[in-house]
Amino acid sequence: MRPVAVAGVGLTKVMEHWKKGLKDLFAEAALKAMEDAGTEDIDSIYVANMLGAPLQGQLQLGAMMASALGRSGISATAVEAASAGGGVAFHEGVKAVASGYSDCVLVGGVEKMSDGLPGEVYSAMAMAEDQEYTAYTGITKMGMNALVHRLYMDRFRVKPEDVAMFAVSSHENAVGSPHAQYPFRASVDRIMASPMEADPIHMLECAGVGDGAAVVVLMPAENVNGGVEVAGTAVATDAYYLSGRRDILTLDAVKGAATRAYGMAGVSPEDMDLLEVHDDTTIMGVLSLEDLGFAEKGRGAAFAAEGKTVRSGELPTNTFGGLKARGNPLGATGLYQICEIAMQLQGRAGDCQVEGARVGLAQCVGGLGSTCAVTILRRV
Amino acid sequence: MRPVAVAGVGLTKVMEHWKKGLKDLFAEAALKAMEDAGTEDIDSIYVANMLGAPLQGQLQLGAMMASALGRSGISATAVEAASAGGGVAFHEGVKAVASGYSDCVLVGGVEKMSDGLPGEVYSAMAMAEDQEYTAYTGITKMGMNALVHRLYMDRFRVKPEDVAMFAVSSHENAVGSPHAQYPFRASVDRIMASPMEADPIHMLECAGVGDGAAVVVLMPAENVNGGVEVAGTAVATDAYYLSGRRDILTLDAVKGAATRAYGMAGVSPEDMDLLEVHDDTTIMGVLSLEDLGFAEKGRGAAFAAEGKTVRSGELPTNTFGGLKARGNPLGATGLYQICEIAMQLQGRAGDCQVEGARVGLAQCVGGLGSTCAVTILRRV
Repeated sequence: MRPVAVAGVGLTKVMEHWKKGLKDLFAEAALKAMEDAGTEDIDSIYVANMLGAPLQGQLQLGAMMASALGRSGISATAVEAASAGGGVAFHEGVKAVASGYSDCVLVGGVEKMSDGLPGEVYSAMAMAEDQEYTAYTGITKMGMNALVHRLYMDRFRVKPEDVAMFAVSSHENAVGSPHAQYPFRASVDRIMASPMEADPIHMLECAGVGDGAAVVVLMPAENVNGGVEVAGTAVATDAYYLSGRRDILTLDAVKGAATRAYGMAGVSPEDMDLLEVHDDTTIMGVLSLEDLGFAEKGRGAAFAAEGKTVRSGELPTNTFGGLKARGNPLGATGLYQICEIAMQLQGRAGDCQVEGARVGLAQCVGGLGSTCAVTILRRV
Repeated sequence: MRPVAVAGVGLTKVMEHWKKGLKDLFAEAALKAMEDAGTEDIDSIYVANMLGAPLQGQLQLGAMMASALGRSGISATAVEAASAGGGVAFHEGVKAVASGYSDCVLVGGVEKMSDGLPGEVYSAMAMAEDQEYTAYTGITKMGMNALVHRLYMDRFRVKPEDVAMFAVSSHENAVGSPHAQYPFRASVDRIMASPMEADPIHMLECAGVGDGAAVVVLMPAENVNGGVEVAGTAVATDAYYLSGRRDILTLDAVKGAATRAYGMAGVSPEDMDLLEVHDDTTIMGVLSLEDLGFAEKGRGAAFAAEGKTVRSGELPTNTFGGLKARGNPLGATGLYQICEIAMQLQGRAGDCQVEGARVGLAQCVGGLGSTCAVTILRRV
């Protein structure tokens, strides 16, 4: 298995990009990533996208993006794993280089959610759940998160304000982030006063609807100067419908992917200098901290509430704002995280820089934890 | 790059499976493939599917199928490349084993087209074309094939009956095929008398709507006894919209993928004992024969019309009926082809057996040639 490195990164600001289509967003991020890597000589493309079919009526995005980049001829495919797609596509791109099949792979995620009306977007997002067991009931992604959030508060005697502190931290970190969708501070009072999205989840506790693209270029480590090594990468799954889970407050896919990625990298949670975790809601951010091994079960909310996750804290987490404040363009999200970790490790994070970071972890989740991808990057 | 072998195959009959959903079809084929491989110890799943979102409202099929097989925990993802998805997913599965990331991979394709009304299915299939340049005009896949078909007849002075002979051959080969959707003979007169689908393409010249699943299990070659070696595998792309092509009668993605796969396997077209090619219409079958290197440009129709492609012919092609008569469940199609080649090389093709076959090639196409996957299998 030959070592793989991130040779370049590129991303667009997350926002409602009314004047740009899927191709425009992808190409914008891809051109930046190729320039950053100092090569246009890519031989394969992986495209992570979730809602192209329901929102844009668009499939076969691999060939589409190869063509949009003027690189028709090369190998290309689309990868889909709901909002874990970006991390999963990265995992596949790493295998392409590690196997020797490819010498220069472009892995990009793109999503354009603002093309749909809110109802259309929520229906489309529900496609990540089992239509025969879950989605047909009409429950939304947010409704499912609310069930988990309520049970968490009940079982571990946690106050709503403590869970909300995860969003306070993500918004705090987003200040100064050039590509964040919502780069402003939000106090816990403001969050608790925002409209109820799905009781007990407030609007300012969940990621909004946004468009964006994030791209990395991967090459054999020996061909990259000053790059960032892919120390660990793993994908794991959990029971597809909630009632099949061992415990709906434990994300076994997160535990599984993390265990494998730590093993591959030869590290443990204590070695991490910074994290990007999947806080599409505050409760998912909290559970992620626990199941990645950074807080005991039931203590994840307190971990954030104690200020450990801000950039100046003990374990800077979601250093450009996370899903909550940087934004969550589904298929692109996992690649935003990976780009951000790479930028931090290379000292290119500008106002968001965490000083001296050497090892970082990115974790993204599909559905309510059915798929998880964990990536560990290390400064060479 | 460690050598990879097909350790087991499984498939369902292609038909309108009114009582089975995506999970049922996939699990049926997967259980057969795991039994055939003599192991249930798979560590990764790749699922090829095209129309799950528009027809079943279903995404995140990787986690779904891992769960359906009782294998939650393992790595899983969905792969999409229109009707080339099956071959592309196979290519990714091979990389997973070749890289050392996986020791036992299940690659399956599944499609359930009968859930949609005809208009819904045609609209959904058009998602494989660029919505901004092609699909928005309202042209169907069949309409695009008709443009190519008409130009082909005009440029090379080929009679409609000669092109139709490709379907005569595929139907001839389907007789005795236990999993074929339409296992009956069709004379050229009957084909030419069938209703016009999109002038000049007759109904009996194009694949119908069908449901099915096909699955392979891949392992390191050294762990497989009596398996079939993956000698070559490649994916290539072409300009995403037709007007960007060098020549719309030449499938550059097919030429590109074939050249790479031949090179990897160290073989040339003359070494092939049998083929599975992408005849979703007669004209695509004809162009495929040419661009894979088996007939000169403009001579593909004659190649079939001269009887070379039937099972007793010089180069048995589509030996279980091809897309035309075995059926074309889009995302599953490329894996049906690979299962069929493997069964032929192992002497397990029953009434469809081609005696003494040692090397075979499978080729599947997404859209009107935007993506192509070519697989070369060799008896060990």
